[in-house]
Amino acid sequence: MKIIKNPLQKNWSDILKRPTQTIDDIEATVNEIFAEVKTKGDQAITKYTSLFDGISLNNFQVSMEEIVSAEKEISTELKSAIQLAKENITKFHAAQKTDRVEVETQSGVKCWQEKRPIQKVGLYIPGGSAPLFSTILMLAIPANLAGCKEIILCTPPNKEGKINPAILYTANLCGVTKIFKVGGIQAIAGMTFGTETIPQVYKIFGPGNQFVTVAKQLATRFNVAIDMPAGPSELLVFADETAKPSFVASDLLSQAEHGADSQVILVTTSEEILESVEKEVESQLEKLPRKDIATKAIENSKLILVKDEEVALNLINQYAPEHFIVIAENEKFFVDGIENAGSVFIGNYTPESAGDYASGTNHTLPTNAYAKQYSGVNLDSFQKSMTFQKIDEKGIKTIGKAIELMAEAEGLQAHKNAVTLRLKSLEE
Amino acid sequence: MKIIKNPLQKNWSDILKRPTQTIDDIEATVNEIFAEVKTKGDQAITKYTSLFDGISLNNFQVSMEEIVSAEKEISTELKSAIQLAKENITKFHAAQKTDRVEVETQSGVKCWQEKRPIQKVGLYIPGGSAPLFSTILMLAIPANLAGCKEIILCTPPNKEGKINPAILYTANLCGVTKIFKVGGIQAIAGMTFGTETIPQVYKIFGPGNQFVTVAKQLATRFNVAIDMPAGPSELLVFADETAKPSFVASDLLSQAEHGADSQVILVTTSEEILESVEKEVESQLEKLPRKDIATKAIENSKLILVKDEEVALNLINQYAPEHFIVIAENEKFFVDGIENAGSVFIGNYTPESAGDYASGTNHTLPTNAYAKQYSGVNLDSFQKSMTFQKIDEKGIKTIGKAIELMAEAEGLQAHKNAVTLRLKSLEE
Repeated sequence: MKIIKNPLQKNWSDILKRPTQTIDDIEATVNEIFAEVKTKGDQAITKYTSLFDGISLNNFQVSMEEIVSAEKEISTELKSAIQLAKENITKFHAAQKTDRVEVETQSGVKCWQEKRPIQKVGLYIPGGSAPLFSTILMLAIPANLAGCKEIILCTPPNKEGKINPAILYTANLCGVTKIFKVGGIQAIAGMTFGTETIPQVYKIFGPGNQFVTVAKQLATRFNVAIDMPAGPSELLVFADETAKPSFVASDLLSQAEHGADSQVILVTTSEEILESVEKEVESQLEKLPRKDIATKAIENSKLILVKDEEVALNLINQYAPEHFIVIAENEKFFVDGIENAGSVFIGNYTPESAGDYASGTNHTLPTNAYAKQYSGVNLDSFQKSMTFQKIDEKGIKTIGKAIELMAEAEGLQAHKNAVTLRLKSLEE
Repeated sequence: MKIIKNPLQKNWSDILKRPTQTIDDIEATVNEIFAEVKTKGDQAITKYTSLFDGISLNNFQVSMEEIVSAEKEISTELKSAIQLAKENITKFHAAQKTDRVEVETQSGVKCWQEKRPIQKVGLYIPGGSAPLFSTILMLAIPANLAGCKEIILCTPPNKEGKINPAILYTANLCGVTKIFKVGGIQAIAGMTFGTETIPQVYKIFGPGNQFVTVAKQLATRFNVAIDMPAGPSELLVFADETAKPSFVASDLLSQAEHGADSQVILVTTSEEILESVEKEVESQLEKLPRKDIATKAIENSKLILVKDEEVALNLINQYAPEHFIVIAENEKFFVDGIENAGSVFIGNYTPESAGDYASGTNHTLPTNAYAKQYSGVNLDSFQKSMTFQKIDEKGIKTIGKAIELMAEAEGLQAHKNAVTLRLKSLEE
């Protein structure tokens, strides 16, 4: 771990720099697969599934039998855990529903704003060693609450052409309408253009490797929206003397095990905490099954000592962490003052894992300093707000003159005419 | 105008197709200017302002003296009109403020969501014949209400190095913090990277030509967000026999005068309305100062007759218009059933111009069918929602087991450990 004491502000950007990823090499491959899926549909999907996932599938839509049999493969304990998580996530996201906003801005000029669901959404869940069924909870639950009609899910099959049962169980539990055994670039292309089997969607959500990330970026050129730009996961912890070093170390390591490129930062005002967290990290690291991955991430991690909490807060706001844990006597100072963070975890008994799985908040959050301008996934991510207005004779008389003047000043005579005609008809 | 009667549903996509724009040629230019602004800052800004706007400026930040003198150049009438619009837009956007959403998902597990302002935003206002000061109202008012600290504005100077006084007046009235005489690609690049004079921003808003559109797209590769993807403006009107043909024609023309590529569509269940609107368009068109532009747009416009309102609604939802005017006895059917539209204008006395300028709703809206998944600009566009959570000893005991089980099932041992350590400490 790199220890940095009282860095000068002019050096903060260098210290807080995230590793950059080059994507230029990948773009050609992504363009090629998109072009092929667009023109050849299912045939291209089958070809790339065979090529990348090593399995030739005649039918890549998951059947109801597969879902029923998946349910039997999962322990009752895990099912209860998933259901508890579902309950909490549902409570928190249902509370985000907003009423219609209605204002009569002038007598006879009624304006309102309503949220309506995005009709068709696509969720992407990566395959690999860790079956991320928790991400299905985070995406399908708010999609359902928002009222999305079509909620499809793509995830790569294993070499036997199967999907992890926890993924099938969770998807079915949370109201996913169709599940496809398709992964990677071809999955994103399939949801972007639609194929004979895969419906075209309006917005694509979910994590993935750099191929999926570049594919999602490309999808935005074809009238599809995406949840947010992706990057490696990050955690920044602020801890003062009231923090338990073993807890802090366990949180840093839980972030580090995500990948060698995970970002892990401790900011503290206490030399003692800095030293004891460092020791704890070393000792806990030894026992982890994903030790190799975590070790690489920890090598790039930083322990930063600053002179006071104000400096700490400025530095944290400049970094804009995806996850921000604050364990401090003066936690209110940080909670009130944080301008840029995806999700904030407060106190010794609020590990990041809680938000990752079961507290109720969403774990799809902005990385790579995007917390400066992006929200994490929430109910609104699955809706769009539309405005409505209804003006009566009195209303147009009140605001008509202003519209005429402004339209004329902008050189838009036909805009003015549309009002003038109406005002004249009311004079008659 | 193209008249289409009772088209088969399988032909709707062709009929509703927007003209596609090719952007490949522009990309090289945009890349080049971005690279130069990134490395050379103000020097590059000055160079391109001289090249594209034909004026060499030593200082491109607008001074307080210029703002004061601009105020004197505008008529009292226009000022009052702008102030009325400001009042209505403020009322409607202030009403969009949401309270903190707080839920105790389990006893001892408190989760809340809060919106916090995007600290630095940049507004772009195009130059040219029509000074779009109304767009400043639509962007700067909600930026201010949201609490954005830095609200900068870039707009190209004319050949004398000046900015239209209505733009300066409106920007100052609405709390823009700094105004720069910089336009086009170099303005977007300046706000993306920051220069000695122009601050770097986190999100860029506003319309522009295709160069600006491509530049905004490129900006998103450098950690900047944009309001939404842009395209030519659109209007779809549904009118039944209760509509006044002259009003409908004036609305279609007000859209048509925006540009030769504007999209104008009438959908109706009445042959009589179709015919009389067509006649009215032809007669009103003759008198327009922007007749040449409007004529081109009208040539591509469509008058579509359908057999009933249900077919009409399906077709409109498939098109997803930016602006949707509905003048119908059964307006409720459309207002309730519209799934995809930027803003909806209801009844004979609600011209699109009202929303463009002064009713209170925002006029920055999704075009090109993006109403399927994007909101128009609203208060939330200038904020991001952050989540917070605080779990106490009791709370972690309640949800800890579920987290452990799920983390283990996902193969993430360190995530589990972060909970296990805490649970163990509570057993002691």
